[in-house]
Amino acid sequence: MFGNEPWAPLVSSAITIVLILVLAFVLRNVAHRIITRVVNRAATGGSITSRFRKGAAPDGIDALLHERRKQRAETMGSVLKHVASIVVLGTAALTVLDRLTIPIAPLLTSVGILGVAVGFGAQELVKDFIAGMFMLLEDQYGVGDVIDTGAAVGTVEAVTLRITRLRDADGRVWYIRNGTITRVGNESQGWSRAYMDVPVAYDADVVGVKVLLEQVAEEMWADSELRESKIVEEPQVYGVEQLSDSSLVFRITTKTLPSAQSEVAREMRLRVKSALDTAGIQLVGSA
Amino acid sequence: MFGNEPWAPLVSSAITIVLILVLAFVLRNVAHRIITRVVNRAATGGSITSRFRKGAAPDGIDALLHERRKQRAETMGSVLKHVASIVVLGTAALTVLDRLTIPIAPLLTSVGILGVAVGFGAQELVKDFIAGMFMLLEDQYGVGDVIDTGAAVGTVEAVTLRITRLRDADGRVWYIRNGTITRVGNESQGWSRAYMDVPVAYDADVVGVKVLLEQVAEEMWADSELRESKIVEEPQVYGVEQLSDSSLVFRITTKTLPSAQSEVAREMRLRVKSALDTAGIQLVGSA
Amino acid sequence: MFGNEPWAPLVSSAITIVLILVLAFVLRNVAHRIITRVVNRAATGGSITSRFRKGAAPDGIDALLHERRKQRAETMGSVLKHVASIVVLGTAALTVLDRLTIPIAPLLTSVGILGVAVGFGAQELVKDFIAGMFMLLEDQYGVGDVIDTGAAVGTVEAVTLRITRLRDADGRVWYIRNGTITRVGNESQGWSRAYMDVPVAYDADVVGVKVLLEQVAEEMWADSELRESKIVEEPQVYGVEQLSDSSLVFRITTKTLPSAQSEVAREMRLRVKSALDTAGIQLVGSA
Amino acid sequence: MFGNEPWAPLVSSAITIVLILVLAFVLRNVAHRIITRVVNRAATGGSITSRFRKGAAPDGIDALLHERRKQRAETMGSVLKHVASIVVLGTAALTVLDRLTIPIAPLLTSVGILGVAVGFGAQELVKDFIAGMFMLLEDQYGVGDVIDTGAAVGTVEAVTLRITRLRDADGRVWYIRNGTITRVGNESQGWSRAYMDVPVAYDADVVGVKVLLEQVAEEMWADSELRESKIVEEPQVYGVEQLSDSSLVFRITTKTLPSAQSEVAREMRLRVKSALDTAGIQLVGSA
Amino acid sequence: MFGNEPWAPLVSSAITIVLILVLAFVLRNVAHRIITRVVNRAATGGSITSRFRKGAAPDGIDALLHERRKQRAETMGSVLKHVASIVVLGTAALTVLDRLTIPIAPLLTSVGILGVAVGFGAQELVKDFIAGMFMLLEDQYGVGDVIDTGAAVGTVEAVTLRITRLRDADGRVWYIRNGTITRVGNESQGWSRAYMDVPVAYDADVVGVKVLLEQVAEEMWADSELRESKIVEEPQVYGVEQLSDSSLVFRITTKTLPSAQSEVAREMRLRVKSALDTAGIQLVGSA
Amino acid sequence: MFGNEPWAPLVSSAITIVLILVLAFVLRNVAHRIITRVVNRAATGGSITSRFRKGAAPDGIDALLHERRKQRAETMGSVLKHVASIVVLGTAALTVLDRLTIPIAPLLTSVGILGVAVGFGAQELVKDFIAGMFMLLEDQYGVGDVIDTGAAVGTVEAVTLRITRLRDADGRVWYIRNGTITRVGNESQGWSRAYMDVPVAYDADVVGVKVLLEQVAEEMWADSELRESKIVEEPQVYGVEQLSDSSLVFRITTKTLPSAQSEVAREMRLRVKSALDTAGIQLVGSA
Amino acid sequence: MFGNEPWAPLVSSAITIVLILVLAFVLRNVAHRIITRVVNRAATGGSITSRFRKGAAPDGIDALLHERRKQRAETMGSVLKHVASIVVLGTAALTVLDRLTIPIAPLLTSVGILGVAVGFGAQELVKDFIAGMFMLLEDQYGVGDVIDTGAAVGTVEAVTLRITRLRDADGRVWYIRNGTITRVGNESQGWSRAYMDVPVAYDADVVGVKVLLEQVAEEMWADSELRESKIVEEPQVYGVEQLSDSSLVFRITTKTLPSAQSEVAREMRLRVKSALDTAGIQLVGSA
Repeated sequence: MFGNEPWAPLVSSAITIVLILVLAFVLRNVAHRIITRVVNRAATGGSITSRFRKGAAPDGIDALLHERRKQRAETMGSVLKHVASIVVLGTAALTVLDRLTIPIAPLLTSVGILGVAVGFGAQELVKDFIAGMFMLLEDQYGVGDVIDTGAAVGTVEAVTLRITRLRDADGRVWYIRNGTITRVGNESQGWSRAYMDVPVAYDADVVGVKVLLEQVAEEMWADSELRESKIVEEPQVYGVEQLSDSSLVFRITTKTLPSAQSEVAREMRLRVKSALDTAGIQLVGSA
Repeated sequence: MFGNEPWAPLVSSAITIVLILVLAFVLRNVAHRIITRVVNRAATGGSITSRFRKGAAPDGIDALLHERRKQRAETMGSVLKHVASIVVLGTAALTVLDRLTIPIAPLLTSVGILGVAVGFGAQELVKDFIAGMFMLLEDQYGVGDVIDTGAAVGTVEAVTLRITRLRDADGRVWYIRNGTITRVGNESQGWSRAYMDVPVAYDADVVGVKVLLEQVAEEMWADSELRESKIVEEPQVYGVEQLSDSSLVFRITTKTLPSAQSEVAREMRLRVKSALDTAGIQLVGSA
Repeated sequence: MFGNEPWAPLVSSAITIVLILVLAFVLRNVAHRIITRVVNRAATGGSITSRFRKGAAPDGIDALLHERRKQRAETMGSVLKHVASIVVLGTAALTVLDRLTIPIAPLLTSVGILGVAVGFGAQELVKDFIAGMFMLLEDQYGVGDVIDTGAAVGTVEAVTLRITRLRDADGRVWYIRNGTITRVGNESQGWSRAYMDVPVAYDADVVGVKVLLEQVAEEMWADSELRESKIVEEPQVYGVEQLSDSSLVFRITTKTLPSAQSEVAREMRLRVKSALDTAGIQLVGSA
Repeated sequence: MFGNEPWAPLVSSAITIVLILVLAFVLRNVAHRIITRVVNRAATGGSITSRFRKGAAPDGIDALLHERRKQRAETMGSVLKHVASIVVLGTAALTVLDRLTIPIAPLLTSVGILGVAVGFGAQELVKDFIAGMFMLLEDQYGVGDVIDTGAAVGTVEAVTLRITRLRDADGRVWYIRNGTITRVGNESQGWSRAYMDVPVAYDADVVGVKVLLEQVAEEMWADSELRESKIVEEPQVYGVEQLSDSSLVFRITTKTLPSAQSEVAREMRLRVKSALDTAGIQLVGSA
Repeated sequence: MFGNEPWAPLVSSAITIVLILVLAFVLRNVAHRIITRVVNRAATGGSITSRFRKGAAPDGIDALLHERRKQRAETMGSVLKHVASIVVLGTAALTVLDRLTIPIAPLLTSVGILGVAVGFGAQELVKDFIAGMFMLLEDQYGVGDVIDTGAAVGTVEAVTLRITRLRDADGRVWYIRNGTITRVGNESQGWSRAYMDVPVAYDADVVGVKVLLEQVAEEMWADSELRESKIVEEPQVYGVEQLSDSSLVFRITTKTLPSAQSEVAREMRLRVKSALDTAGIQLVGSA
Repeated sequence: MFGNEPWAPLVSSAITIVLILVLAFVLRNVAHRIITRVVNRAATGGSITSRFRKGAAPDGIDALLHERRKQRAETMGSVLKHVASIVVLGTAALTVLDRLTIPIAPLLTSVGILGVAVGFGAQELVKDFIAGMFMLLEDQYGVGDVIDTGAAVGTVEAVTLRITRLRDADGRVWYIRNGTITRVGNESQGWSRAYMDVPVAYDADVVGVKVLLEQVAEEMWADSELRESKIVEEPQVYGVEQLSDSSLVFRITTKTLPSAQSEVAREMRLRVKSALDTAGIQLVGSA
Repeated sequence: MFGNEPWAPLVSSAITIVLILVLAFVLRNVAHRIITRVVNRAATGGSITSRFRKGAAPDGIDALLHERRKQRAETMGSVLKHVASIVVLGTAALTVLDRLTIPIAPLLTSVGILGVAVGFGAQELVKDFIAGMFMLLEDQYGVGDVIDTGAAVGTVEAVTLRITRLRDADGRVWYIRNGTITRVGNESQGWSRAYMDVPVAYDADVVGVKVLLEQVAEEMWADSELRESKIVEEPQVYGVEQLSDSSLVFRITTKTLPSAQSEVAREMRLRVKSALDTAGIQLVGSA
């Protein structure tokens, strides 16, 4: 359609085809470069949040692991480059065929079937990235926080768009896909709560026990060491929290700094035990 | 088709292509600005419901966290801008190719496969937003309410279109995607109910116990302090609620102000225990 | 194509484009008005079934809540109006481009990807509405009924096309999406059944116990007060229902008015206990 | 294309458009009438299987409920008519636009997004109808049968294409969507089986117990009343069915008329207990 | 395109339209006949495997049930014929409109939305048929076999392409959709295994017990009656299978004819008990 | 378009249509032959892995079963041939209509709806085949291996592309669709591990017990019979593995030939018990 | 369209068709070669990570298994080649038909239905590959690591793009599809933690016990053998960790080298037990 000469369509076709091929090779090269860069970054452990990582660096990433990681990156990079080449050059080939007025509908149908499989198979990946993106934007947790993802509970070691890496209390390292985390609990924001249930016998002096516990609470709040570094609120004593099978259960509780609740609870147990011992009050098995 | 001159199509094509490119760049800039604004708002913690937030402000959002949030926002903003540029300019490029009568069906097929993955991967996000929108419209809960989402129970700290942020009794902060909440229980609307099960021996004086409990109920309702600030209905005594293994179980119950049920129940336990002690009636292990 | 004049296509195009734009602005305004009306209705608590609501009105919807609801409705209305404008004007823009013979296939592909996400994300919403519509048509339950939805059990406070609002026995308010209710049990239709298991020792006089229980049953049916307001059928005594570890278990049961089963069962327990005490028969722990 | 006159296309267009509009209004009216009829039938409780309903009619569908049902039917009918009008007239409008050579691809894309949501949201409904249709065709159960649907067990009160309505033993009415019933157990077809486990001490006379149980079995089969109305096969005695912690367990079992198994089992327990008492054999706690 | 006469297109259109309508009515009638045949077959209980059914015929399919089945078949047939007519004639109408150059894209879009719902809703049905087809081809089970489908365990009474009908030990009839059976266990192929755990005290004579059990095993294998009709392999005695809390557990096991394992196990228990009694060895509660 | 004669299109159409019909009938016959072959192979029990089957042949596939299998194959074959004919001839009919310039878009839409149902319903089948193909390629298990599929544990009797057939320890035959096996454990590759926990009293001589167990381990390893046919590694004794409620728990463990762990463990229990008896050390109930 | 000669289209068609067929045969051969290579690699056990495999080689892959693997590979290769031929030649046939202006829309619809089934059925496969690719890129685990995949826990023996092969402690070999692993815990990175709970009586000397445990901790840290090869941090003693039913529970814990926690814990138990014995402090059953 560039003119009325009989040879015009032929020339037009030829130009178009050359254009298509040039574009395809340029695109392929761009894709290869991007793959190289992304894969290298993965191999050297670079991640979006690495710049926020403070301490808690994983031990033992020694030369051997580094070597394995590098080899894997190269293998993966090679696989990905093949895939990219096939996609780009295949698309270009189809375009050229179409330009030559060879019908490509059947070919597109075959490719489309593959596409359905790939598209649906890749949706999980997209979910992970979207979940990771919002999680980062909303600043739900960072490296060093103790979080509960349902699947695992532990300290965050790394956050990428696709996965979150935790280390649990037993030293196990967990890799969790961001898209599978539907709710996450962060134990390192604001405050935590320590509490202790104190079961006493049914015939115990209810008022006396309560007073005793309140004394312990006051002492803890008065203890400058605890107050400075761990407790953020005067401990409170609740009344009869529960009528269990064999005991009346009192509860003593306090707000602590984030993640300090275990230590404070241990301290609390020691002090309450001592106070009760002094007062001659028995604890009762609370089942 | 603008005239019959032989050069008309060429001119028409050129004009169209320029128009497309101009539009694309305008769109790209608009997209970048919107991204900047949205990401900045997220970084400064601005949320739809922040204007309704009253008290219960999260402690410890100190400078460090603020800095991390800002860096994250910038990183995410940069990622999103790249994505927006690729989408807008890619679409423009395809349009130009089509205008130049280069066949783009194969290209659209390739892009479509990606589109399936992205579209399906993003459906969860849309579900979250839709769920959040209706939840807000129906005013299911607000900041400060104690809610039960199944995944976690706690006090609402923030509500956005995508997530709800809770803090549970242990101080853990929960981020829950709105779309995963299929049913939500709000403990802070209207009233709550406090109750206490009173197990007595099989040979206890059934009528006597009931009268005793009714006296306690009347006293509680007569107590002006309780009535003013906590109880909204005279406590009721149910008859033999259950024949357990070793005991007859009576129940005493009352409506309280929202979220005051724990305190009222503790008070009730103390009073019932005292009354029974006075009357010389033993409680029996009910478990 | 309106004539053969050379300027005909141009004029035709211009007329069409003006027509499109006018239509788009009209549609946008209609959409805005509908949004305003729907959102306002939601804000004032108006719901499809509100006209059937009798009593059980939620307490404490005070001015504060009303204000919050109004603000939320305004915010949501504004969000929805933006969305509507973008959809309507975007569609119009695409139509104009198409009319100007600018190829829009690439643009439609981009929009289609978004459409897949939105369409699939919104299917839950459609499910809720369809489920709600049929539930209302089939009159499965109404305000004031006690229902069991699996997720929660309680008294229905409101029914809309999208959600059902319950209040459970503890005063917790539940919002349940209609589409997540696969089976619902209504305790307030026709009748309920009260029953009591009576465990006696292995060496008890089986016939004597049965006669005793039948006497209690007759007395209950003869009691005009019970019969008028609660029981709808003479209580029946079943023989040895179970051979448990340590006891023979008889059962006594009766049909009651809907939701009156708890009260009747309590009455039954009291009467059976008294009768057995009088006859000197011991109950045996049945658990 | 009706001739070669220059005004031919215009006339042709005009005729077509009028035709489209007339068709649309006819279709809308037909749709409205169908909706009215379907909704009215639902309001008056008419259902496919109502003609097969024998007894077990739900009590207490009084005037109030009837009124509520009628109002709901009207509300739903009005909603559905709006929807039908929008669909029919919207389609007609699009057709007219297309006929006027205004491009409608962008509009169809917008509508298609809505369509995906509606189509996918409605698939559950279709599943319910298909499941109901086959369930009726295969005559899996009818009104009056006792069935186990997993979600609930009870007597069928009504069967429609979309739901099955049961009433369980406690009087609770269950509405279960047919599509959610993957397997259903019908207790009212052919026969049921009653059985009783008889635990005796480890040192019991194994042969003697077996003979005793066989005598009971023969007596039951000889009892003309039982045989006529309940038992359909001579009871069988199995040998040592189980070696439990503290006992040898025999089993006695029989086929009964459908749903008569509870009564027969109770009779069996009484007779076995008496026979063992007479023979001086102790039952041993089997749990 | 049939000639060059000006009226040619008109004639061509008319002929085509008549052809379409004739075809449509023929197709509708064919569909109606197929529906009548299929529904009638369902009503008379004819099923693919009925020719293989041997014994185990369901009792009590009396005249009443037959009548109900027939009425249901008629109702369903009428519903299905309406659906078929609407589909066939609707398609024909759309074709005619298209032939008259009235644009049908908007109509097809509306119909397509319905189609998505129907197509997705019907996929379960297709899954059932495909599962049933392969299950029959692979001959996984037949009428009379005892199978475990997860949802229910029982004797197969009928197998169709869509469902499998079982009767469990309590006489309950189960209808299970073939597509929901992901794994099935057939107890009636080849052989079954009977076994018995023999717990003895920690201080028992381990070798002596083993010898004793081996004697019992030999006797059972020597018993010609058992060997002929039930056991297919000499019983084996395993050594100390388990060290439980209070006992050493031996195991004795044998292969039996399919489904004969319960009877053989009962026989085994009797014989082992007698032998141990004779030898003065106590069984110990194995928890 | 084969020439310029006016009758050319007609002739062209006629030739095309004849060509289409001939092709369709050829395809139908090919499909029928393939179906016959596949179904016959299924009926005669031929399966991909049958050539690898060694021993463990299923007993009792007698003439009756063979007859049933043949009849089923014929029925299925007939059903499948009908389906194939409808698909092939239906497609041909549509093609002919299209060639006659009768619009087929509405017809294709109707067919497409069916197609969605069939396509989605068949995806499970494809999953099974793909899973089976990779499972075979990766040689995860073969006939005779003992595997754990989650749904069932047993010895593999047959492997096809669609299902795996197991026989469990009780003689039950399991048919498991390959696509439902997400992880599989093969107990017959390499080695198995036998172990035994030895609970002794808190006051036992820890070192003495350990020495004793090590002697047993050495003896087992020295026993040439065990070493030749069952054990592949000297048994190891672990120290105090657990502090249970009432005992210290030692563990003794060894690698055995695949699937020989039960026998070795029984042997180990006997030997340890004897050694402890000799040494006068009591085992303690380990709960 | 190559010129204006009447025979031009014919020639053009013929050339195109020959071109299509040549291309198809070339593609088919390429596909066959790729299949041969991939299948052969699978048969010889070559996998992506095989080059990283160090030790832990699976025993007993003897000649028999090798033969079976080879046969399977050949069978699979043959199946795959048939599939490839059908796809390639079928696509070519459709293209030729289209070029001959025979309408192929109906054929494409039929093929598309198959395509939906295949595409959706294959999405799991794509998920597995994508998951495997990222897992390798992120270096989550390697051969020899002990990992917890939820479905199984064990030592990694091989990693491919599709599956991970583990061997658990009992010697069972697990094949787990990468796409089904949503979170994975790696026990072999950095460190593990060994701990021991020490329950003492309520009346124990709390301070004394703590001091005693701290001595044990110091001794362990001082033990050069432990420190060199197993412990990486001085053991810590926590205070009263729990108030159980009958005891105060102390905890002693330490970081160890990866996977050395069991051994260290055993050592710790022995040492603590000895120290407590020496000091005359009883351990209390901790339930």
